[in-house]
Amino acid sequence: MKTIVKKFGGTSVGSVQRIEAVAQRLKKDVESGQSPVVVVSAMSGETNRLVQLANEINSKSRGSSYDMLLASGEQVSIALLSMALEKQGLKAIPLLAYQLGIETDSIFSKAKIQSVDAEKLKKYVSEGVIPVVAGFQGVYGDQITTLGRGGSDTTAVALAAALGESECEIYTDVPAVFSADPRLVPKARELTKIGSSEMMEMAALGSKVLHFRCVELAAKFGVKIHLRSTFEEREGTWIVPDEGDDMEAPVVSSITHEAMTSVIKVFPTPVGPGFMATLFGRLAEKGVVIDIITQSFNEEGQRLAFSVHGDDVNEAEEILRSVLPSSEVEISVINNMAKLSAVGVGMRTHSGVAGRFFEVLNQINAQLYLVTTSDIKISAVIEQSHLQEAAQALHKEFGLDQ
Amino acid sequence: MKTIVKKFGGTSVGSVQRIEAVAQRLKKDVESGQSPVVVVSAMSGETNRLVQLANEINSKSRGSSYDMLLASGEQVSIALLSMALEKQGLKAIPLLAYQLGIETDSIFSKAKIQSVDAEKLKKYVSEGVIPVVAGFQGVYGDQITTLGRGGSDTTAVALAAALGESECEIYTDVPAVFSADPRLVPKARELTKIGSSEMMEMAALGSKVLHFRCVELAAKFGVKIHLRSTFEEREGTWIVPDEGDDMEAPVVSSITHEAMTSVIKVFPTPVGPGFMATLFGRLAEKGVVIDIITQSFNEEGQRLAFSVHGDDVNEAEEILRSVLPSSEVEISVINNMAKLSAVGVGMRTHSGVAGRFFEVLNQINAQLYLVTTSDIKISAVIEQSHLQEAAQALHKEFGLDQ
Repeated sequence: MKTIVKKFGGTSVGSVQRIEAVAQRLKKDVESGQSPVVVVSAMSGETNRLVQLANEINSKSRGSSYDMLLASGEQVSIALLSMALEKQGLKAIPLLAYQLGIETDSIFSKAKIQSVDAEKLKKYVSEGVIPVVAGFQGVYGDQITTLGRGGSDTTAVALAAALGESECEIYTDVPAVFSADPRLVPKARELTKIGSSEMMEMAALGSKVLHFRCVELAAKFGVKIHLRSTFEEREGTWIVPDEGDDMEAPVVSSITHEAMTSVIKVFPTPVGPGFMATLFGRLAEKGVVIDIITQSFNEEGQRLAFSVHGDDVNEAEEILRSVLPSSEVEISVINNMAKLSAVGVGMRTHSGVAGRFFEVLNQINAQLYLVTTSDIKISAVIEQSHLQEAAQALHKEFGLDQ
Repeated sequence: MKTIVKKFGGTSVGSVQRIEAVAQRLKKDVESGQSPVVVVSAMSGETNRLVQLANEINSKSRGSSYDMLLASGEQVSIALLSMALEKQGLKAIPLLAYQLGIETDSIFSKAKIQSVDAEKLKKYVSEGVIPVVAGFQGVYGDQITTLGRGGSDTTAVALAAALGESECEIYTDVPAVFSADPRLVPKARELTKIGSSEMMEMAALGSKVLHFRCVELAAKFGVKIHLRSTFEEREGTWIVPDEGDDMEAPVVSSITHEAMTSVIKVFPTPVGPGFMATLFGRLAEKGVVIDIITQSFNEEGQRLAFSVHGDDVNEAEEILRSVLPSSEVEISVINNMAKLSAVGVGMRTHSGVAGRFFEVLNQINAQLYLVTTSDIKISAVIEQSHLQEAAQALHKEFGLDQ
């Protein structure tokens, strides 16, 4: 009996019919000799409904009450899936975070898992009981925490790691990871395999397929993630730990984008490290994720520019104004920007990738607002209006079109 | 600062607007020097929605998964009310059963509270924090249990008892307990005070205002219940521990009815105690509540008749047929019956009440199918078609019309 952690997302359990389909699929898995440990998200739409209720009362109230509210969604789906499994003649037990000892740090709404009671899981598995675990939630002391959007993926990998398993299946509503978003680039292809580093870059760069922390955790504990469709039997994409420099690897494996980006420019900024430390500390406290940062200095003064997600731009601007010492500083916010990136471990061993990247953008007259590179990716912030043309051109340039 | 447990039902927290109104009311209470401990039901409609989801999967599956499912409703409402209280500038903490140590027995869906961690509640109250407690739920070991419909009232009384408080406020969508259902008897009056025994009889006899177990628990621990409207400031009805024989008490304080009743007759039944024990044991196992039972014997054989709620009649009949040894026994089911009762502690010290009761029914030609009495109530099962006329006539006969 092979123990495999299997995570089903919100659309996979979005209705009673789909929950029953998941139960039938799990029955087949059991009949084929597997011992599933199941992780489930809230039914699709449920978390949004709860967020909406909370926002109607107080859109700024975040903390233990808010996390308790959101965690109720997974409580419903694990209870229903357990009932559906029992109907299939299987033994199942729904487990909330406190029942399984999924302990996290104290950062509500973005908590990180610290430990899991694997012995309890193993005991159920050895008794032939399918544990059906609430994803997305944890406990800090006796309070309920949540892990942030996509957190159920992280729960699944954390359970696989705690069980000492080398694989984890993540069932979702897309069949695989693509070389680009097919809605943006019609020639995008399915990838059969991708390295953890590339996947982490893709997640960090706006690909919605997998949560960054989930891939990071999988890489850390050597867990292979098999991302596949709930609605098809065939295999999807394997996200595997990096295998060192692979000369055969494509130079660029995917083109990734983040459509809702804003750029904030500040000039002149106070000189010295104190201001930057205060600013970015305050932004982090409020959970505003700063993406690309550039700083430059000439005789006129110091310039700062950075990009943030479009949802966070108002909060970022507010924090900036509260931190800046004088009213003589000019803050400009540029909305309707997009970030476009090329990702590939092959970049490590091939030169000239950046040149080709910039030349493509130059040919379509896309102005570069911010640029950043790492050893396996190049990103540029451009105007949204150029996004689709640029993505398709890069996909072609790097040989990703079929 | 006076600590008062205040319970708000599903309609009181049925929308974000109503939750905010409850928070505003609690703020006034705090400003007037009270320290509230709040108990909340699920938002109205939510429990039904969850039951519906469960029934779509498996209408017979009841147990830990089902109770975990239903308990999610209160998790949502306590989180939202806590956020609304914080918005009012108050400190509040939502508390689930496991966080407050509300321990119950192991009877899922009908669990009874065994103990509550009152010290934790007192600590929050002493720190100026309003505990917002999920009603209806408990824990047995590390599993979630629920207390049955109306269980939030029981939670509230249990908290008051554990805190050593002598009062408990139950806010609902009716302003008071009435001398009869105003929809049936237009001249029904609001009662300012009623004894626990009378209230328990009324609950057992079909009055939906308060859960039987809640009143029973209140009587046991000497807790006075103040039942009042969420939507009005004025006082409602006090349900108070019995004060011994009160010569001043009205002979009858209320006329109560249960409209959906069926009568089942069996003839001839097997003689001897074995059959009755088996039958009523089997009915109890399935949760079918038997109400009035009569048995008679003459040379033709033994006759059995009993009443059940209209919802349970099919299951009761099925069980009867499975238990009866031969096909020669005649089972007759009479539907569309109603049970009408007069309740009053004054009956203890006044004679002739039964005579007056039966005479009223006789005058309107209502045939008596089953009759039962206790020291403080008389009940009769009659045809539904006579119910309204009979209720009004009894209300008048016992001086309850204004």
